[in-house]
Amino acid sequence: MGNFKGHALPGSFFLLFGLWWSVKYPLKYACRKNKNVCYLGSRAGFRRLEFVEGIIKAVFALIGMVAEQFVPDGPHLKLYNYEKKHWDHLMNWQHATMYLFYGISGLVDIVAHGTNALPAAMDRMMLSLAVFIEGFLFCYHLHGRAMLDVHVHQLLLFAIFGAAACIFLEVFFRGSIVLEMLRTSLCILQGSWFWQIGFVLYPPNGSPEWNQTDHTNMMFLTMCYCWHYAFAFLILAVNYTIHMTVLHKILLT
Amino acid sequence: MGNFKGHALPGSFFLLFGLWWSVKYPLKYACRKNKNVCYLGSRAGFRRLEFVEGIIKAVFALIGMVAEQFVPDGPHLKLYNYEKKHWDHLMNWQHATMYLFYGISGLVDIVAHGTNALPAAMDRMMLSLAVFIEGFLFCYHLHGRAMLDVHVHQLLLFAIFGAAACIFLEVFFRGSIVLEMLRTSLCILQGSWFWQIGFVLYPPNGSPEWNQTDHTNMMFLTMCYCWHYAFAFLILAVNYTIHMTVLHKILLT
Amino acid sequence: MGNFKGHALPGSFFLLFGLWWSVKYPLKYACRKNKNVCYLGSRAGFRRLEFVEGIIKAVFALIGMVAEQFVPDGPHLKLYNYEKKHWDHLMNWQHATMYLFYGISGLVDIVAHGTNALPAAMDRMMLSLAVFIEGFLFCYHLHGRAMLDVHVHQLLLFAIFGAAACIFLEVFFRGSIVLEMLRTSLCILQGSWFWQIGFVLYPPNGSPEWNQTDHTNMMFLTMCYCWHYAFAFLILAVNYTIHMTVLHKILLT
Amino acid sequence: MGNFKGHALPGSFFLLFGLWWSVKYPLKYACRKNKNVCYLGSRAGFRRLEFVEGIIKAVFALIGMVAEQFVPDGPHLKLYNYEKKHWDHLMNWQHATMYLFYGISGLVDIVAHGTNALPAAMDRMMLSLAVFIEGFLFCYHLHGRAMLDVHVHQLLLFAIFGAAACIFLEVFFRGSIVLEMLRTSLCILQGSWFWQIGFVLYPPNGSPEWNQTDHTNMMFLTMCYCWHYAFAFLILAVNYTIHMTVLHKILLT
Repeated sequence: MGNFKGHALPGSFFLLFGLWWSVKYPLKYACRKNKNVCYLGSRAGFRRLEFVEGIIKAVFALIGMVAEQFVPDGPHLKLYNYEKKHWDHLMNWQHATMYLFYGISGLVDIVAHGTNALPAAMDRMMLSLAVFIEGFLFCYHLHGRAMLDVHVHQLLLFAIFGAAACIFLEVFFRGSIVLEMLRTSLCILQGSWFWQIGFVLYPPNGSPEWNQTDHTNMMFLTMCYCWHYAFAFLILAVNYTIHMTVLHKILLT
Repeated sequence: MGNFKGHALPGSFFLLFGLWWSVKYPLKYACRKNKNVCYLGSRAGFRRLEFVEGIIKAVFALIGMVAEQFVPDGPHLKLYNYEKKHWDHLMNWQHATMYLFYGISGLVDIVAHGTNALPAAMDRMMLSLAVFIEGFLFCYHLHGRAMLDVHVHQLLLFAIFGAAACIFLEVFFRGSIVLEMLRTSLCILQGSWFWQIGFVLYPPNGSPEWNQTDHTNMMFLTMCYCWHYAFAFLILAVNYTIHMTVLHKILLT
Repeated sequence: MGNFKGHALPGSFFLLFGLWWSVKYPLKYACRKNKNVCYLGSRAGFRRLEFVEGIIKAVFALIGMVAEQFVPDGPHLKLYNYEKKHWDHLMNWQHATMYLFYGISGLVDIVAHGTNALPAAMDRMMLSLAVFIEGFLFCYHLHGRAMLDVHVHQLLLFAIFGAAACIFLEVFFRGSIVLEMLRTSLCILQGSWFWQIGFVLYPPNGSPEWNQTDHTNMMFLTMCYCWHYAFAFLILAVNYTIHMTVLHKILLT
Repeated sequence: MGNFKGHALPGSFFLLFGLWWSVKYPLKYACRKNKNVCYLGSRAGFRRLEFVEGIIKAVFALIGMVAEQFVPDGPHLKLYNYEKKHWDHLMNWQHATMYLFYGISGLVDIVAHGTNALPAAMDRMMLSLAVFIEGFLFCYHLHGRAMLDVHVHQLLLFAIFGAAACIFLEVFFRGSIVLEMLRTSLCILQGSWFWQIGFVLYPPNGSPEWNQTDHTNMMFLTMCYCWHYAFAFLILAVNYTIHMTVLHKILLT
């Protein structure tokens, strides 16, 4: 994962989910307000959506785990190198562990929304835990790296732990559009920041490297992080406007 | 911003909003208790107030952003100095970023209270985020300054993050007079403390400078911060009393 | 305050309030469960109690402020020593500031429960703030002291911030017997720990001093703190039992 | 306690409680959904269970306290060694203190569910406190140990403080299946991690010792901790499935 692609890939997943949520939740909100018009707004329809989301999440997580294990320089399920007496490819194993919890979250989504066996709120709890575990592993991931490297990953932790807290609140305030929008914005932020990390630490196309020890670079990136967040809200606003006006009009005519 | 005016100006804005809220919320509370008397207490009336507040917030934020960019020694929209190879006027850019989020919060206020498109609770969520971003940027703002400088800004962070948490709670407990008063008091505190910072770090009229490394100065300022807070409550109490008694009597006669 | 009495006095106040609450809240709970029997359980009766509590709190706070100012080696309202160019008796001023906020809390109690002008929940908010300010000032109080001295005061902070959080929760869950008991227990803990601090740092009657740098002393005191808490629960349990059984029986006959 | 058994024993207790809860709460949830079928699901039945649980908790805690005091190299109720002038067997006293609070929690369970004297929510509050005190004492327990030793105990703190927060939330959201499952998972995690600590710090059967200062060992153990948690959810899922399907079918036929 220590390259540009290794950050662009998870970033794209988070962006994908964030963008999808920025479509789904405004739609859901619009439908809840105009019940008689919009048949998609039925509880059954949205439950099916969450079911499909769970499948996609689980599949992505499975692909991620397999990829981390079986890339050419991956561990191939070997955890300990008995000859050299050290742990083998710990980074890949850590990433696989992160994916594992997203996989569990996907499975819980599938069971909670595909059957009546599990209480619906379990899906939020598991997602919150998956996000928390991601942040938790990140915390112990950064030992001994350069200052700028640590800083950009620490900034990511705000989005991660913020999202974990927000999703945990959803256990108790389920269906609150405010929390759903907050989660969506933090998810887009995480996705676009992963891309930014890739550009900063592994500049593609032979761009010059960033000075890892320059304090003004850190200050710029902190600010840049806020711009990413403003950008996330811009996307949210555009998607929200489209669905609340254009699509709304179509449905009403 | 590294001068007396640069602290007095934002301080005045916060004081202005704090004082206005210390008038508005007691009034709102009084009107809610005497529904038949007070036509201002209608939900529509207060919604219009929040709409106007949003406009003022957005305009102030715009002025702030433009001012930070185009003051004589500002960046004039130039972010990177390619000749000297360093970031240009990062401080001004950071302040403009802070204003940006207050601007977004103002826009959300306008949309949420001017139309029916947005859920009302979004205004509190965005305001909470704007305050949080202010504190977040402040945290990474203080690197390498003198002890006293860092300390007075750290004290400010209590008011900022306290307000952010309080406003976030308002998402769930909207219209709670207790939270509204708490927010008002923290806003006045922030405003008056900005003035205090100006007096401490950039003493006007040739007053002697404060010793930046004297530990007793830090202890005094910590205490002084509490006095500012007590003073904020005094203002709140006076405004509250006026509106609950004098104005109340006028309305009843 | 830097002597045995200076810790025993506030400790006694907290113990007094804690013990009183350990009588009041079980009584209130018993009365709420047996409405027809117990005329003390009327809302008006308990409101009057809270009114009186507010007066006592305000008077204690006033006495505390005056005492801190006018003890023989106190500041006598002099804040800055212009001759020697340093702040005068900052410790006393800090303690007076702590009392000030308890005084404000007392005033709010008086207004909230003596008139209908203030929402009742304001009393908990101000008490929570008063306790928070106490802890806040303590945090910046301990600079440059010996290890054991810092440690015993840090332990106190758990009780203080715990109580502040608990009282803040009461704003939203008013009248929850669980939170009231938790607050009472933390108040007794604070009181008895103040006494313990007095005994540890200023051993009376010529007892040998504690070794301030011995790590096992710190470990013992941490454990001792837990015993104090267990003791607080013992007091609570005894008072609770008496009021729920003996007094209950008397009322029913 | 500084040996393999000393970690395996408390680990077994937590595992036992965790496994029992992973049976009890799904059963309770199933019964609540099918009220007419399942007589065990009566409130009285579950109250009796909680009563018995309280007795078991109190007895275990008593055994634990007695064992810590009277093991051959225990303090035998002697706190201070006056000859050598140092505290005697502080570790054992600290562990006994931890058990003490679990004992108090057990007593509160007994009173709250055996009589009507105490509000039911007190049991959760005391359990939350008992878990918090356990974590609190652990925090001041680790001074001066090797890096890996500190790390594995710090990881434990996440499970402990997580459980304390979760149980405290149950005071307000009593009977929430989501919180009950979260608590159960954290309890199993704590139990299995105690075993892991035993294996890492005191490898039985002459296995080679772990290198206490190798950073990759720390990274592996952090990841391993997550696997334990995934394993806890596996156990939960299996137990949940059994009770929601097999047992459910038996009851319905």
